[in-house]
Amino acid sequence: MSQGLRTDASWRDGEAGERTRTTALAAHIGEQVRIEGWLRSMRRLGAISFLIMRDGWGEAQAIAASAEELAPLDEAAASVESVVAITGIVASAPQAPGGVELHDIAIEVISPVREAPPVILSKREVKASLGAQLDYAVVTNRHPRRRAAFRLAASAMAGFRETLSARSFTEIQTPKLVFAATEGGANVFEVKYFDRAAYLAQSPQFYKQVMVAVFERVFEVGPVFRAEPHDTARHLNEYVSLDAEFGFITDHFPVMALLRATLAGIFARIGDDCAAELDLLGARLPEVPARIPHIHFTEAQELILRLHGVDSRGEPDLAPQEERWLGEWALAESDSDFLFVTGYPMRKRPFYTHPDPERPDYSRSFDLLFRGTELVTGGQRLHRYDDYLAALERHDLAPEPFAWYLDAFRFGMPPEGGFAIGLERLVAQLVGAPNIKLVTLFPRDITRLTP
Amino acid sequence: MSQGLRTDASWRDGEAGERTRTTALAAHIGEQVRIEGWLRSMRRLGAISFLIMRDGWGEAQAIAASAEELAPLDEAAASVESVVAITGIVASAPQAPGGVELHDIAIEVISPVREAPPVILSKREVKASLGAQLDYAVVTNRHPRRRAAFRLAASAMAGFRETLSARSFTEIQTPKLVFAATEGGANVFEVKYFDRAAYLAQSPQFYKQVMVAVFERVFEVGPVFRAEPHDTARHLNEYVSLDAEFGFITDHFPVMALLRATLAGIFARIGDDCAAELDLLGARLPEVPARIPHIHFTEAQELILRLHGVDSRGEPDLAPQEERWLGEWALAESDSDFLFVTGYPMRKRPFYTHPDPERPDYSRSFDLLFRGTELVTGGQRLHRYDDYLAALERHDLAPEPFAWYLDAFRFGMPPEGGFAIGLERLVAQLVGAPNIKLVTLFPRDITRLTP
Repeated sequence: MSQGLRTDASWRDGEAGERTRTTALAAHIGEQVRIEGWLRSMRRLGAISFLIMRDGWGEAQAIAASAEELAPLDEAAASVESVVAITGIVASAPQAPGGVELHDIAIEVISPVREAPPVILSKREVKASLGAQLDYAVVTNRHPRRRAAFRLAASAMAGFRETLSARSFTEIQTPKLVFAATEGGANVFEVKYFDRAAYLAQSPQFYKQVMVAVFERVFEVGPVFRAEPHDTARHLNEYVSLDAEFGFITDHFPVMALLRATLAGIFARIGDDCAAELDLLGARLPEVPARIPHIHFTEAQELILRLHGVDSRGEPDLAPQEERWLGEWALAESDSDFLFVTGYPMRKRPFYTHPDPERPDYSRSFDLLFRGTELVTGGQRLHRYDDYLAALERHDLAPEPFAWYLDAFRFGMPPEGGFAIGLERLVAQLVGAPNIKLVTLFPRDITRLTP
Repeated sequence: MSQGLRTDASWRDGEAGERTRTTALAAHIGEQVRIEGWLRSMRRLGAISFLIMRDGWGEAQAIAASAEELAPLDEAAASVESVVAITGIVASAPQAPGGVELHDIAIEVISPVREAPPVILSKREVKASLGAQLDYAVVTNRHPRRRAAFRLAASAMAGFRETLSARSFTEIQTPKLVFAATEGGANVFEVKYFDRAAYLAQSPQFYKQVMVAVFERVFEVGPVFRAEPHDTARHLNEYVSLDAEFGFITDHFPVMALLRATLAGIFARIGDDCAAELDLLGARLPEVPARIPHIHFTEAQELILRLHGVDSRGEPDLAPQEERWLGEWALAESDSDFLFVTGYPMRKRPFYTHPDPERPDYSRSFDLLFRGTELVTGGQRLHRYDDYLAALERHDLAPEPFAWYLDAFRFGMPPEGGFAIGLERLVAQLVGAPNIKLVTLFPRDITRLTP
C-alpha cells in the first residue's frame, strides 16, 4: 500500500464514545456516566446546587454538593447555555426530570458562555415578547417548547412521505426559480436572474402536474414563496408546502380519500414519534375519521344562514368566522375535527381548476377545515389541452408564457388532481399556537428577513 | 344527522378500481385485465399491430389483431402519447416486455393526442439534441431512461433521510430568502423583497449550524441557489443539496465517518429500490468500503508530482484532472470508488472552516471524490465566538450582518461539523451522464429558466 493512503484510522460513526444521552440515564442507576449538553439552569440552595443540563434529546438534573464541584464553572466564568460535560453517578430521584439525577459530579466546561442569553430559557415557558422571541430565534429555538413544535413538524414531514411512498408516489424536487408566476397572480417575488427577471415559485403546482405524465403519482416537500404584504398571525411569506398530485382519478373524491389517508398517516407518525412533545405542549392529536364529513359550498352557506342568521349566499368564499362555525358544526354533528367543503365557486379558483360538469359555476375543488380553519386546498384539475386554452382566455391570460406547461396536456394527460398542506399551519393548529411564527424555525414576514 | 353532512360517500383510496399496473401483469396470465397509461408506440405489421403502453411503473405490449380493435384510436385520431385504457387477456410472450402481452383487446381513448410529440419517446434512447431535450423536458422526462434517473434521485433522498433519522438526526427546513449572502461571496441572486433587497440562500450552512444548538444533529433536503454565470456540463444554478450537521465531534474524522455511513445507506437504498432502473441505465452501484481511504491535501500534491510529474504544490485547490488522477489512484491502490482528500488550505475555504491546530494554514475540512470527481464537501467548523470574530476580521468581513449567526456561538456551541452532498451530481456520476442537466428534472442555467 502506497504512502499517504490510510484506511486504518479509528474514527467513529458519529457519536462520541463514552457519552450517555440524558434520556437514557434511567438505565444506568448506580453507574458512572458522562453527559454533555447545555447548562440550562443553576440554582444554589445553601451548599447544594441544582444544575439542569439539556442535550439534543431531553434534560437531566445534576447535584453539586460543594463549591469544589462547581469550581470549573466559576473559573471559566461560565453562565447558563455554556456547553459542558458532567460526569457523575446516576441516582434515583423521583422528583427530578426523568426520575434520576447525577451525584458526585465532575464538571468540564467545553464552550463557556460569558453573558446572559437575550431570552431566558430556564423557565417552563418563554416569557419574552413575540418580537424578542423572533429576533433571537437562534436562542429561543433551544427552548424545550419550541423544540417540541419543530419535532412535530419533522414527524409530519416523515409521515407525509411515508404514507405517499407506501402508495407508490415518487418524490420530486422542482425548481423554485421560475419564469412566469405560478398562478398568474401578482403576489410573486422578483429575482434578478443574470440580465433578466425570474420569480420565486408560489407553489410547485405546474411542475407537479407536469410530472403526473412521468410518474403518475408524485409528491414534494419544499419551500413556497408568497409576496403578500401581510403580517398576520396566520401567514408567512415563505413556508413549507407538502404537495401531492396524481392521475387516473374520476373526480375530486379520490383526492379527498388520499388526503384523508395522508393526514391519518401524518398524525399516526406524530403519535409514534412525539408522545413527550405532545405532552409538553398540551396538544391533543385529532382522530382522523374513516370518512371525513363533507359539505358542498352552497349547502354550507345555507347552513350558516339557518344556524347563525348570516346570509353570505353569493359570496365566492367563506370568511374565517364562517369556517369556525362550520368546524364547530362538524365537531358537534360528527365528532370530527375535520370537514371538507367542496365545490367552491369557479370564479375565485385558479384557472386550472376543474368545473363540476353538472354545475359549471362550481368546481371540483375542496378545502379541508381542521378545527375550523382551512388547512389544505385541493381538487381535480383540467387535463385537456383545449380546456386549458379556453380557461386561460376566460382569465384574460395569454397562453405564450404557459407554453411549456400546456405541452404537458397537449401531449397526453389523464384526469388528475392533488392537494397542498401547509406544514407550519398544520403544526400551529395542532398545538393551538397563537401565532404561526411561534412554530416556524426562522419566519419571514414583511418586516422580517433575519435571523 | 343534519342535512348536507355526508359521511357515507363511497370514494376510493387513490387507485381506480379495476386497473392493473403494467408491472403486475405476469401474475394474471389467462385473466382479463384493464391497463391504463400512455401509448408509447404502435407498429403495424400487416394485419397485426403491436402497441406499447407505458404507465407510471413500467410498460406492456398489447396486440391488435384487426382493424376493428384499433378503431377507437383511428376515430379519435389519437397518436402516440395519447392516454388510453386497454382491456385484454394476459398471455405469456417471452419476447415482450415483462414476458407477457395482452390479446383480444378493447381500446378506450382517455386523452387523445393529435400531433407528434416534439421529442421522440418510442426509441430506446432519446435522440434529440441536448437543447431540444431540455426545451421539451416536460415531454422528454417521460422517457424511461430519464425517468429511471429521477427514480435514483428519489431513492437517494430516501436513503439519506433514512440513514440520518436512524442516527437521531432531526429534519429541518430553513429559509431560502435571506438577508446576507451565506458565505459572504458575490455569487448570490438578489430578490426584491417588498421595499428592500433579499438574497437566495447559497446553502443552508448558517442555519444548519445554528440548529446544532437546538437538536445537536440536523439534516435538510432542499434547493440551493448559485448565481455563477456558467453553463457547463457539471454545474447548475439551482440544485438540491443534502445537508447534515452535528455537534460534539472531536475533529473532521467523525464527520467523514458519518458521511461514509450515509453514502452506504444511500446506495443500499438505491440498490433495494432501483434494480430495474440501474439495469436500464447500465449503471453499477459502487461498493462503499468500511473505511474509505483518505489522503492529506499536501500528500495528494506530492503524489501527483511523483506519479504524473505535475508540480502543483503551492496551489490552494486541486484541478479537475488532478482529482481524476487521485480517483484512478484510489481505485488502483484500494479498489475504492471513493477517496477523501483532507486538510485543504485555509485560504481557499470559507471563514467558518476550522483550522488544523497543528498546521494552522491547513484546515480540518475535506472533499470526497467519487470516481475522480468531487461529490461532497465538509469538515469541522469553528465553534467559539471569539474565533468567529477573528475569522471575519481576517476575511475582511464586518461582523454586523452576521450578528444573528454569531449569537449561536456567543451563547454556547459545542465543536461541530457537517457536509453537503449535491443530489444531481451524485446521480450524474452514478449513471455516468455526460451532462448533469440530463439527470435534472428542469435544470436552471444562465440561459435557461423554462420549462
